[in-house]
Amino acid sequence: MKPVLQHQGSFRWEGVPVQPYKSEGSHFRDVTRQTLFGPGAGLGCELRYFELAPDGHSSLERHEHPHAVVVVRGAGRVLVGHEVFELRVFDLVRVPPRTWHQFRAASDASLGFLCLVDGERDRPVRPTPEELEALRQRPEVAVFIRA
Amino acid sequence: MKPVLQHQGSFRWEGVPVQPYKSEGSHFRDVTRQTLFGPGAGLGCELRYFELAPDGHSSLERHEHPHAVVVVRGAGRVLVGHEVFELRVFDLVRVPPRTWHQFRAASDASLGFLCLVDGERDRPVRPTPEELEALRQRPEVAVFIRA
Repeated sequence: MKPVLQHQGSFRWEGVPVQPYKSEGSHFRDVTRQTLFGPGAGLGCELRYFELAPDGHSSLERHEHPHAVVVVRGAGRVLVGHEVFELRVFDLVRVPPRTWHQFRAASDASLGFLCLVDGERDRPVRPTPEELEALRQRPEVAVFIRA
Repeated sequence: MKPVLQHQGSFRWEGVPVQPYKSEGSHFRDVTRQTLFGPGAGLGCELRYFELAPDGHSSLERHEHPHAVVVVRGAGRVLVGHEVFELRVFDLVRVPPRTWHQFRAASDASLGFLCLVDGERDRPVRPTPEELEALRQRPEVAVFIRA
C-alpha cells in the first residue's frame, strides 16, 4: 500500500474495493463495506468504512467483540442495547460486547461510518425468536428494528 | 461512556477533553489531542483525534508501532519516510514501523486527523543529528521538516 491513499470523492479511495456488507442474507439492506486499514496495516485492529443507502440497514446482531464507530457521512439512527439514538456526522458510537445493535440510514440520506474492530474477533449472532420478542417489548425498539 | 457521544461542532465531543499533544518539548507546534476511543473501549487499539492549527506541526519521529490515519479536517502535508505528500479531507495515511514521519497543517487551514494505534506501543524517538543530516539530503524534505 502507498503511504497516502487519496480520497477520490464520494467516499471512494483508489485501490479500495467496494464490497458487499455480508456474503448472503436478507437481514440487511443496501450496505457496502470498504476495508480502509486491514491486516496488512500491521495493527491489532481493522478500520472499515460502511455505507448504508437511504433507508438501508445493517443486520440486527451481537457478538463478544466491541465496536467503535465514527459517523462521517449523512444521518441515521442506531440501536445499541435497548435504546435508539440519532446519528449525525462525527458522532461517536460505542457498542460494548454482547450488545444488540443495528444501524439504519435516514429515509433521505445515506449513513456512512468508520468502524473499528479487533483483527481477531468472534462471529456475530442474530436474535432468536424469543430474544426478538424481548427486544420488541420497548415500543421505540419494536418500530425501529428490522429482523 | 454513553453509547453515543454527539459531535458538538468544531471537532469537540462532550466529555472528551482537549489535551496537549505531548507533555513537553519544542519540537512540535500548535497541536491538540483528543482520545475518542481509549483503553476503556475494550479494543486492542486506540483512536485519537489530533488537530494542528495553521502552520502547526507534529514532531519529527519514528517508532516500531505503525500508524493508520484518516484526515477529517482541513489540509496539510505529511512526511512519510523520505517523501512529502499533500493531504486533503478523507485521505488515508499509513505510516509503517520505523518510518520517519511529520504532519504539518497548511498555512491557511488547520489539519485534523484520526490516528489509530495499538494500545501497547513503544515510545517515539527523534532523529540524531546524523539522521537529520541524512533526511535533509532530499531538498523537498529539507524544506519541509521542522526538528
